[in-house]
Amino acid sequence: MEHLQVSVAQRIVLESVATLGVESVKLEQSLGRVLAESICANRDLPPYDVSAMDGFAVRSADVMNAPVTLEIIEDIKAGDMPTKIVQAGQCSRIMTGAPLPQGADAVIRVEDTQVESHTSVQIVKAVKCGNDVRSQGEGMKTGEVVLLAGTEITPGVIGILATVKAAHFAVYRRPRVAILSTGNELEGMDDPVDPNKIPDSNTYALMAQIQALGIAPVLLGIARDDPIELEQYLRRGLEFDVLLVSGGTSVGVHDYVRPTIEKLGVQMKFWRVAMKPGHPLAFGTTNKTAVFGLPGNPVSSMVCVEEFVAPALRQMMGNSRLHRRTVEASLAHDIKHQIGRTEFVRAQLTRNAEGYVASTTGTQSSGVLLSMAKADGLLIIPAESKGLAAGEQATVQLLDGAVFQDEAGFRE
Amino acid sequence: MEHLQVSVAQRIVLESVATLGVESVKLEQSLGRVLAESICANRDLPPYDVSAMDGFAVRSADVMNAPVTLEIIEDIKAGDMPTKIVQAGQCSRIMTGAPLPQGADAVIRVEDTQVESHTSVQIVKAVKCGNDVRSQGEGMKTGEVVLLAGTEITPGVIGILATVKAAHFAVYRRPRVAILSTGNELEGMDDPVDPNKIPDSNTYALMAQIQALGIAPVLLGIARDDPIELEQYLRRGLEFDVLLVSGGTSVGVHDYVRPTIEKLGVQMKFWRVAMKPGHPLAFGTTNKTAVFGLPGNPVSSMVCVEEFVAPALRQMMGNSRLHRRTVEASLAHDIKHQIGRTEFVRAQLTRNAEGYVASTTGTQSSGVLLSMAKADGLLIIPAESKGLAAGEQATVQLLDGAVFQDEAGFRE
Repeated sequence: MEHLQVSVAQRIVLESVATLGVESVKLEQSLGRVLAESICANRDLPPYDVSAMDGFAVRSADVMNAPVTLEIIEDIKAGDMPTKIVQAGQCSRIMTGAPLPQGADAVIRVEDTQVESHTSVQIVKAVKCGNDVRSQGEGMKTGEVVLLAGTEITPGVIGILATVKAAHFAVYRRPRVAILSTGNELEGMDDPVDPNKIPDSNTYALMAQIQALGIAPVLLGIARDDPIELEQYLRRGLEFDVLLVSGGTSVGVHDYVRPTIEKLGVQMKFWRVAMKPGHPLAFGTTNKTAVFGLPGNPVSSMVCVEEFVAPALRQMMGNSRLHRRTVEASLAHDIKHQIGRTEFVRAQLTRNAEGYVASTTGTQSSGVLLSMAKADGLLIIPAESKGLAAGEQATVQLLDGAVFQDEAGFRE
Repeated sequence: MEHLQVSVAQRIVLESVATLGVESVKLEQSLGRVLAESICANRDLPPYDVSAMDGFAVRSADVMNAPVTLEIIEDIKAGDMPTKIVQAGQCSRIMTGAPLPQGADAVIRVEDTQVESHTSVQIVKAVKCGNDVRSQGEGMKTGEVVLLAGTEITPGVIGILATVKAAHFAVYRRPRVAILSTGNELEGMDDPVDPNKIPDSNTYALMAQIQALGIAPVLLGIARDDPIELEQYLRRGLEFDVLLVSGGTSVGVHDYVRPTIEKLGVQMKFWRVAMKPGHPLAFGTTNKTAVFGLPGNPVSSMVCVEEFVAPALRQMMGNSRLHRRTVEASLAHDIKHQIGRTEFVRAQLTRNAEGYVASTTGTQSSGVLLSMAKADGLLIIPAESKGLAAGEQATVQLLDGAVFQDEAGFRE
């Protein structure tokens, strides 16, 4: 079978998965979820015309020929309701957020006035009707849609939900994800150390990648290279919405996993992607489960999760943003590349006067997890590149540890 | 009191807070935490010299004058131990990851060979000693420090922890955070709608910002503008490691919060920062609690959390990366700015051929939370700028919703 391009394989995966239905969550537990209903305003905000500044509420006609002296008839604070009507020649002292009194149609900022006495103020600037007034409903109007279904619930969105007093609402359900490692060579977390075996890091690294998406995966353990045992494990895995099977580097994967998966009714969509690391990536579906056959190499399987599994899970959760944020970086050194496969190089980012600078995190062997642990991002080398030279620009996908940075990084 | 520069205020905050002690966590619950101990390798990886390729294990001296034909004495798969010693004129077929047999000192890739029969192969390329061999301990050596204390636990780090079978380990404790809203004008989530009141969105927006850092804050509720009630609430808040008090826009903040806080033994470090939105930001400490007095405006308080509270909390959790990731973006349109305060403009990011393009999210009034809900980031206008013109470059801090993006965004 041919090796698919990364984007073609991504498209096949994303065309195969969809949202899984909705559930109600409480506001306090909703961060990171995606709204499955649109949310309407339950009030006008501001509830009436309010002052946008500390100053004086005036009739704009009165101040056309400023400077002019006006009588102060009232003090209005935020939370107060005005009690007096501003007549010609009058004004009310007003605080930011306080309701505009009847009669007034504009606000003069305190810095454009000179208070003459307790009861009179000189206005030194003419303003138009509506100056420094926030109109009723300017922020939101009763019944107006303020958040569309499909909105990801960020802290700012939670602020809006609280503003319209949405104590609970519908969000897309999270997929249930199972993780299975396979291979006789694997040593489980609770097994004694055996130098002839390889510790099963994949179960936990994949678990963490799934947790980072807000999903608590179920760890099925290690299936040995035995068709009966493997079938039992895979049957269990096919009860979930998504099953991640990471194969060993040994015979197991190719000998047992594929035929057993197909025997259990999984329709395979592809088995090879033209990427490095990660090319023995497989994907298939049943009518209820999406199955990813991930490489046994720890780095390879993690890269496949970033490029294929995470976008699929995010789509299932209703997100429209499926891909890692990217930045452009100039290369600190040459990077070799053999034509043929898109390469995802583990890279660290620093900064110089021009912007980001990327350097690779030591050995790029797909067996060396430290390269991934140290990486700020995955630097992408296009398949047809003959290698990149120091100073060239490349695209870097930011990984979890790179959401924050060492320095504030802005000129204040 | 003077208005502090943002960076000066940040430094005061960060000099006032430190890590809070350590606790043990299980590997499965450790994502996002920070290691409080260094982690050593418990084994050599690979455990012996292994092949880095599928091919033939040879004596390099034998292939010096390639092409040469060698006798195949054994097949070694990953997980197998070799049983035969490679003598002069001999080789063993070997799979990636399989142990190098005694006698052999190099691997020839299968593509540099021509198999002649079941028992003989022609080697067409000379290689040096060590070719395509991963040496014992190349990945990690027993006793060697593989992760330093202070490392943030990302999925890649969890892979390393699983590799060395660290089932539990010491991490820095998370701060306990309390959130208090103040002001008569506030309407609680469970109160009936009153058009004369403002819904208390701050409690929930701040909650979500703290949750996004991996901390479950305690919501103290709304303290009214009454010195006795306020004191009770503040006393409760001062039992936590961090107390966030958001004031109303009304008299409450300035009349009661500051004197009550000081009466309760909080030593105030500053009360004003030269930023917009957010300038009435206060910060103080007791011997156990860091207290942030946040503006009542929803956007202002969220910006203050991003710039001051989040870095402080991350430092308390042992992180070395305290600040939001920044990217440079060119402006889609002019942005006005009055000299004097550093401005944090809510901005959306798109992309053109040159890179990121930023545009503001509608009205920048600090009362309009929708601007924050729609923002990908905070675009920073330096205090002394006279305004930015379309096409100029500016720095944008990426917010939570911008960790992922719409498109893959790389050339494959």
